[in-house]
Amino acid sequence: MKKLLAYAESVRKDIDNLIFELLKGQPQELYEASMHLLKAGGKRLRPVLLLAIAKGYGLDEEKALPAAAAVELLHNFTLVHDDIMDRDMFRRNVPTVHSIWGEALAILAGDLLFSKAFEAIMMLEDRGIRHDLVVKAAKKLAWASTTVAEGQALDMDFEKRNDVTEQEYMIMIEKKTAALFKASAEIGAIIADVEDEEIEYIGEFARNTGIAFQIIDDILGITADESKLGKPVFSDIREGKRTILVIYTLSKLNDKERSEFLSILGNRNATLEELRKAAEMIKSSGAIDYAKSIAKDYVSKAIDYLEKTSIDKGIAEMLREFAEYIVEREK
Amino acid sequence: MKKLLAYAESVRKDIDNLIFELLKGQPQELYEASMHLLKAGGKRLRPVLLLAIAKGYGLDEEKALPAAAAVELLHNFTLVHDDIMDRDMFRRNVPTVHSIWGEALAILAGDLLFSKAFEAIMMLEDRGIRHDLVVKAAKKLAWASTTVAEGQALDMDFEKRNDVTEQEYMIMIEKKTAALFKASAEIGAIIADVEDEEIEYIGEFARNTGIAFQIIDDILGITADESKLGKPVFSDIREGKRTILVIYTLSKLNDKERSEFLSILGNRNATLEELRKAAEMIKSSGAIDYAKSIAKDYVSKAIDYLEKTSIDKGIAEMLREFAEYIVEREK
Repeated sequence: MKKLLAYAESVRKDIDNLIFELLKGQPQELYEASMHLLKAGGKRLRPVLLLAIAKGYGLDEEKALPAAAAVELLHNFTLVHDDIMDRDMFRRNVPTVHSIWGEALAILAGDLLFSKAFEAIMMLEDRGIRHDLVVKAAKKLAWASTTVAEGQALDMDFEKRNDVTEQEYMIMIEKKTAALFKASAEIGAIIADVEDEEIEYIGEFARNTGIAFQIIDDILGITADESKLGKPVFSDIREGKRTILVIYTLSKLNDKERSEFLSILGNRNATLEELRKAAEMIKSSGAIDYAKSIAKDYVSKAIDYLEKTSIDKGIAEMLREFAEYIVEREK
Repeated sequence: MKKLLAYAESVRKDIDNLIFELLKGQPQELYEASMHLLKAGGKRLRPVLLLAIAKGYGLDEEKALPAAAAVELLHNFTLVHDDIMDRDMFRRNVPTVHSIWGEALAILAGDLLFSKAFEAIMMLEDRGIRHDLVVKAAKKLAWASTTVAEGQALDMDFEKRNDVTEQEYMIMIEKKTAALFKASAEIGAIIADVEDEEIEYIGEFARNTGIAFQIIDDILGITADESKLGKPVFSDIREGKRTILVIYTLSKLNDKERSEFLSILGNRNATLEELRKAAEMIKSSGAIDYAKSIAKDYVSKAIDYLEKTSIDKGIAEMLREFAEYIVEREK
């Protein structure tokens, strides 16, 4: 964990400098709205993953930076739009973009971040990355943004359904969350010009890590300390998200409990007391332990793939920490 | 005009086939929402422009098709999001995406079209376009999408202001509309691997044509037949758009008329009678003739640039028709 944190700390400034350089422009209000969430914080997991992998395969980090900026820009674009769709008012301990600037400008701020992500990835050319590798990397980025949109559509659709299965949930989070982890890792490997098999293994490492990340995210949405989380706890319950916790809990309740639970789930007018009651039902069902054990299984799978790669040993150690941090984190 | 129409007709099916191939996917509702406006119609001006230019510089159209699909996808992405921001309920004679599927899915449908535009442009690689040219083309596409977002932000900001100048309006439409015309033309030339000077001339042809296009669009928003326009006439007045017509009219009114005009402009509850009154004030100010003469000046400039190019003579003739059609069109 110490190695990972030190590494993340060492590259964060370079990532942010490039992102903020890309987000200089007019009209000022649009660019301010686009920078808002990025300035508020965030863990920069995806760009750190990308840079570590590029470095682990022998590429100078300076050359990989535009790709790192690209995946973070793409991630923040999805956050800005998702917050509008989910009507979330807080993230990273600050009001969301649409709650400050209104929905119209927030849609546009997200669009700008999306566009800047593609501007960024094309800047790999200016850092001497071979043209065929730039195209290959940009294809991955486009694949990821399509896949994330499909995942978000499933997530919203599931809110209307009470029969979502764990398998459907897994497909949804694979698209919504794991795809961008996978693409970040693969892009790091692609621009370092390694063989396809190597790209596949490191991509599987990141995909499995990404799945674990989302399961833990769903757990933290119920158990975390609100100030650490940076957004209201229980918002998943209020919005009716069909997380693995909800699916597991529903499978364990009797008819009476189930009907009480469903009356709170997705009820935007639910009181804090009701939300706490639903959270209690989730906790006492054993869903938290169940979900955590599933997340740990994915981390194990991730590490199996990591061991198949021929990435630098020091970086491999850091990536193992990265995957383990995913399940231990508190925010 | 006959040559242009025949050409547009001859390539339309190929453009649409590729677009609809790209828009096959799951979840079904998301993909249906993304295809909605594209299925409803549209003139396909940007992809036709791109294909004609690529062909005029000797590139096989088959190879240019992914780029043509890309600019049309990008254009439709902006329409879907703009309709949400402007609260427009009709376009191309059908209800807008958000008025059928709701805002959340419409945001996502736009995002998917955006993402597919970049997937499409990267497919140039698969048709044998050199990697450096694919990167150059994709950079133009990203530049255009950033610029269009900036233009839309200005357009929305202007709705709140009564002191917008004609110069500011010109900058806004240059970003919002002309940038994608310019990028479409330049991409056509780039992938045909012509010299930078040639790219610049054909880009200037398209930029000037794009400016004329938007001015005429603003005129049609006041004068057109509603069924031909495919969307409610006067919506620009209702939304308070600061078009060249509005700016000119405001400069000609006395204080009393001005205050009456401004009480209707941007008033979402204005009656049809009031909207007609405002449109009448625009017409009697001489704004229509004024705007049309400005549009014609831009078409002249466009044609001057066209004559500087060394593009195939037959295609040049068609492009001239294209620019002239822009000011003669009724929808």
